[in-house]
Amino acid sequence: MTTPDVPFGSCPLPHSNASSIMLGHGGGGTLTQSLIETVFLPAFANSALSARHDSAVLEVNGQRLAFTTDSYVVRPLFFPGGDIGKLAVTGTINDLAMAGARPLYLSAGFIIEEGFAKSDLAKIVASMQAAATEAGVQIVTGDTKVVDKGKGDGVFINTAGIGVIETPLTIAPGSARAGDAIILSGDIGRHGIAIMAVREGLEFESTIESDCASLHAPVAALLRAGVDVHCLRDLTRGGLASALNEIAQAAAVGVEITEREIPVDTQVRGACEILGLDPLYVANEGRFVAFVAAGDAERAVKILRGEPVSFDARMIGQTVTGTAQVVLRTAIGGNRVVDMLSGEQLPRIC
Amino acid sequence: MTTPDVPFGSCPLPHSNASSIMLGHGGGGTLTQSLIETVFLPAFANSALSARHDSAVLEVNGQRLAFTTDSYVVRPLFFPGGDIGKLAVTGTINDLAMAGARPLYLSAGFIIEEGFAKSDLAKIVASMQAAATEAGVQIVTGDTKVVDKGKGDGVFINTAGIGVIETPLTIAPGSARAGDAIILSGDIGRHGIAIMAVREGLEFESTIESDCASLHAPVAALLRAGVDVHCLRDLTRGGLASALNEIAQAAAVGVEITEREIPVDTQVRGACEILGLDPLYVANEGRFVAFVAAGDAERAVKILRGEPVSFDARMIGQTVTGTAQVVLRTAIGGNRVVDMLSGEQLPRIC
Repeated sequence: MTTPDVPFGSCPLPHSNASSIMLGHGGGGTLTQSLIETVFLPAFANSALSARHDSAVLEVNGQRLAFTTDSYVVRPLFFPGGDIGKLAVTGTINDLAMAGARPLYLSAGFIIEEGFAKSDLAKIVASMQAAATEAGVQIVTGDTKVVDKGKGDGVFINTAGIGVIETPLTIAPGSARAGDAIILSGDIGRHGIAIMAVREGLEFESTIESDCASLHAPVAALLRAGVDVHCLRDLTRGGLASALNEIAQAAAVGVEITEREIPVDTQVRGACEILGLDPLYVANEGRFVAFVAAGDAERAVKILRGEPVSFDARMIGQTVTGTAQVVLRTAIGGNRVVDMLSGEQLPRIC
Repeated sequence: MTTPDVPFGSCPLPHSNASSIMLGHGGGGTLTQSLIETVFLPAFANSALSARHDSAVLEVNGQRLAFTTDSYVVRPLFFPGGDIGKLAVTGTINDLAMAGARPLYLSAGFIIEEGFAKSDLAKIVASMQAAATEAGVQIVTGDTKVVDKGKGDGVFINTAGIGVIETPLTIAPGSARAGDAIILSGDIGRHGIAIMAVREGLEFESTIESDCASLHAPVAALLRAGVDVHCLRDLTRGGLASALNEIAQAAAVGVEITEREIPVDTQVRGACEILGLDPLYVANEGRFVAFVAAGDAERAVKILRGEPVSFDARMIGQTVTGTAQVVLRTAIGGNRVVDMLSGEQLPRIC
């Protein structure tokens, strides 16, 4: 049976015509989509933005470049497996990688609340540099603003990034096509649960660490091997479910995935149960899906398993002709339509 | 007589070794410099960042690109002559133009406080698009985050920008040399005073409007005409005084300027007197200085006067060998050393 589903742990569908901004408008789900569609896209209309890709793909004198930006407002600033600085660097590197680009340069803009400890700022900055060095990118330009106490929250960081696209492929949500294999790079839910566990004071046998990591290496490995990659997407706000829904809609294909094939760590699963969350909607910061030509699927999985950050990669499903929706084959053998996240599940997760 | 001078209206020199961030660290003066030198530069060490330019100048497969970022936290969000949206677009366009680049693409990252009116967001976004269209640039990628009520202040906007450098010149602070003519593009102090007047509830015969505007056109005109441009700098946080000090230090030249040649609107001057501010330190958002070869000075002034945004351009001084400092020949005939802004004069001006 195929029935629409409201993701666990999300609020009832909020009134999306509200006249003021709600937390959910930043959640990466349907409210964010509605804000993009009603406010940003009509004003900024241009083809690069309308592609709704993780990065804009631009041509500058015959050279294809990827360009992307993200602001980071995660709370707490330091969490198991990372901090806002590492997140700000790896997140933007990942958006570039998802366009098939080799990340080259980052900018860093800081909005600091008056009274923030300089030693914490130094720790965050060191963490940014470590992540940049590990990925071979340079932070080449920056900006600092300070706001009055009570008008910010420690520090917010924006990073923008430039990468160069050297593959002839057009890797984009709209390039997925019926018959593609869908490969997931590893287990899901770690980042969101790591953050929530700190916020809620949950304790586990061992600490759940965020999966926060750069994904340029597995992407480069796929492209180097000539795998026919159609679409890449990292599984940030809104999780696996929202990413797959966005791609299904952009490419006008159906997505079928098998629950049994989607790895979730036992502790992460336990925490999700306690918190009433569905791991399919929980944010990751070091996981992605690759839509590749079916004939390349096995080879792609093998290549991904050769990279530390995607050692647990596996095929979780395929695309089909028909309705642009995501259908999950559940562990007990039923089918369930998996919607996009509605409203906000985990505020300020990145 | 040449004596060091503390800018009017700034606090006594703050203790720059303080362990927490103060508003002044975002002011664009000595505290900002100290934060850059002690926290950011040591961590992010690379040649593009060390150039301390408005934009980083990068080479991507033989193509010179400029890349820059700024976050905007101005208060109030709407002010005479502009709003945070216009400011966010023109400010980043100007940073690209100051590297001699033709601005092409912008990103936009929004950090919105829960409860912010959607209608205000729509106004700001429309204003961004209008400024982008006017300058021929596209906003191609974006991001939205929402923070809890009381953890932000309406909306903060980050823009990053990419431009292409088509001139063979190396336009940078370090390229100024002794004997250069210094040209100022128009009257100073409008932006800072427009903001302060709203905040302090000052009323004038006619409203003082911010000079907020894109500066790509006058820069393109100079380059098209083949003027030997050594350095360009827009006069934002810290004003004319701080910009000239930065260039003097970067190029290891002395700067001599003549007070009589620096245009200040009568109402702006009056407001500065009331507020205890020195117009030399007040932020502008549509003014710049050009350091050009002396032989090209007259021609450069003429070209700038042909562009609406710089119709009042004039030569205000020259560079000399000797100490890297800025000396003002005052209206009454004395000499005064003009230091960099210390601390914060006008918080959250941009």
